[in-house]
Amino acid sequence: MTITYRRIVLASRPTGWVVPENFRLETLPIPSPGPTEVLVRNHYLSLDPYMRGRMSDGKSYAKPHEVGTTMIGATVGEVVASHDPAFPVGSQVRGMLGWSEFGVVDGRALERIDTRQIPISAYLGVVGMPGMTAWYGYHKILAPKPGETLIVSAASGAVGSVVGQLAKLGGLRAVGIAGGAEKCRYVTEELGFDACVDYREAQDAKELAKRLRAAAPGGVDAHFENVGGDVLNAVMSLLNPFARVAICGLISDYNNDAGAVPRSAIRNPAMFLVARLKMQGFIVSDHLDLWPQGLTELGALLLAGKLKYRESVANDLASAPEAFIGLLRGKNFGKQVVKLI
Amino acid sequence: MTITYRRIVLASRPTGWVVPENFRLETLPIPSPGPTEVLVRNHYLSLDPYMRGRMSDGKSYAKPHEVGTTMIGATVGEVVASHDPAFPVGSQVRGMLGWSEFGVVDGRALERIDTRQIPISAYLGVVGMPGMTAWYGYHKILAPKPGETLIVSAASGAVGSVVGQLAKLGGLRAVGIAGGAEKCRYVTEELGFDACVDYREAQDAKELAKRLRAAAPGGVDAHFENVGGDVLNAVMSLLNPFARVAICGLISDYNNDAGAVPRSAIRNPAMFLVARLKMQGFIVSDHLDLWPQGLTELGALLLAGKLKYRESVANDLASAPEAFIGLLRGKNFGKQVVKLI
Repeated sequence: MTITYRRIVLASRPTGWVVPENFRLETLPIPSPGPTEVLVRNHYLSLDPYMRGRMSDGKSYAKPHEVGTTMIGATVGEVVASHDPAFPVGSQVRGMLGWSEFGVVDGRALERIDTRQIPISAYLGVVGMPGMTAWYGYHKILAPKPGETLIVSAASGAVGSVVGQLAKLGGLRAVGIAGGAEKCRYVTEELGFDACVDYREAQDAKELAKRLRAAAPGGVDAHFENVGGDVLNAVMSLLNPFARVAICGLISDYNNDAGAVPRSAIRNPAMFLVARLKMQGFIVSDHLDLWPQGLTELGALLLAGKLKYRESVANDLASAPEAFIGLLRGKNFGKQVVKLI
Repeated sequence: MTITYRRIVLASRPTGWVVPENFRLETLPIPSPGPTEVLVRNHYLSLDPYMRGRMSDGKSYAKPHEVGTTMIGATVGEVVASHDPAFPVGSQVRGMLGWSEFGVVDGRALERIDTRQIPISAYLGVVGMPGMTAWYGYHKILAPKPGETLIVSAASGAVGSVVGQLAKLGGLRAVGIAGGAEKCRYVTEELGFDACVDYREAQDAKELAKRLRAAAPGGVDAHFENVGGDVLNAVMSLLNPFARVAICGLISDYNNDAGAVPRSAIRNPAMFLVARLKMQGFIVSDHLDLWPQGLTELGALLLAGKLKYRESVANDLASAPEAFIGLLRGKNFGKQVVKLI
């Protein structure tokens, strides 16, 4: 009897919004690990906005995902067969095994993780790539000083929630932007931000800027951008001299039709001079040398109870496409993962 | 008999393009210096794009110029009466005495300059604020490495010409953008840039990008922006990973009607992520601590024959408004000064 597993491949490239037909669920026989390889059973799959970029074949910082191959993605799981003494059966590991229940991989592409005090799924969020993204942008690009005001968009999300909590720990005024009253309540009451603006309540960019001004009466010194569009332009109107803007994501543009003017087009470039603005885009995987430091710090904060997080958990691999489309539409609440077993 | 001098005041704020009626020439009695003050006869007045910003009362990095007062501006000249032992009669000085033939000022607001080897007018250009602007943006924001490609707009101007020459001295490929064949010839043949693109020959931004791509076949690592508009957007389409853009000026927007969408609106914000772009605006007067170092280096390069410059000289204070309007339209060639005596 052949034992099978399921994976999801990119079936076609989206035009505009991602649709379920862009994915295909396949069932395959479980492969055997070759020399130096291990077989991993994935427990959780991470869903992240960057995946949208890989689905297209436009110019980007990474090569486009090939149609017909397993969708890219970070995973945590357990080694179930091993030809690598460094990863015996039972090892808990993080890797990039994609949208798949099982995977065979060279041990050198895996990391051991310690789940005695930290839940395994957190290694995909607050002590994983999203947490590290927040840490890098906050410390290395925004580099804020106590007393400054920071705004972060998608504030209840996997990245934004860490940015705002780091800001509070750093003695800043932290203002979140989120979609809906429930997320805003979570951001202020549970995460401890000073204020949160519900962008859905604002009719237009002008109204959004007005609400942000009320939440940041001293102006904005540092902005961590996950969304773009009207949010970015509204924040730009509030920048103080020597402001910094870290561009982590522009999710509001990811589903544009080809040729459309991006909603994030920066309409007031004079602010670069008025505010001596530094705006910098970054990709956290360019800075792997800093991950050990960042993840150690985040882990310590988590264990000390100083870092909170929330997860949206989808059950079963087959639900991944729907959960991913929901993520792009802001339906998730906190880190979006898929529970595979 | 009262001895008189002439000055030019801001008569009214421009709407859109500056017109001669925005200025008024006045004749006044020469004042006497008070205690600790000196009377300076100005030899040259500097005309610079930043003055356009001060004429308006919109939000900017500096307070708007008051209507009815002497137009702001850097000057070089000679002390002709003195109550400050540090500046005896005959001292050659640089100050901010404005569009005026004479000025009374506290000695602490002046700098001694040495004109034995360097012409006095150069202290308004290559070894003055424009040179320092080039030095700061080049070294402190772009920080390029040998072998990289740099583009600078307004390449034949007071700032751009220094940026490109610093790039060549630093082992870079230097590409200029200038208006007209004569300026482009100067940029390549006299200043030694590797290439120059005449933006007037391009019908649109797409054509401009195509010409720039031909001049920078390896892509663009560093861009020094003095102009903005189509130039900025064209360069943005050519950026390499980890590119830096220094925003020094956006002169193409300075004469917009109120409410108009700036020509420099950044239409492809995704490049912040694709190129991990750092874009930073700066004002050189924020960095006075670095002026001694920068000006010393520029002076040494000038004396060694490694830095060339050109001036457009207007004669007589009364010609300043016309020369300034010409500067905003790109009619000057090199540093624009007004010779006052």
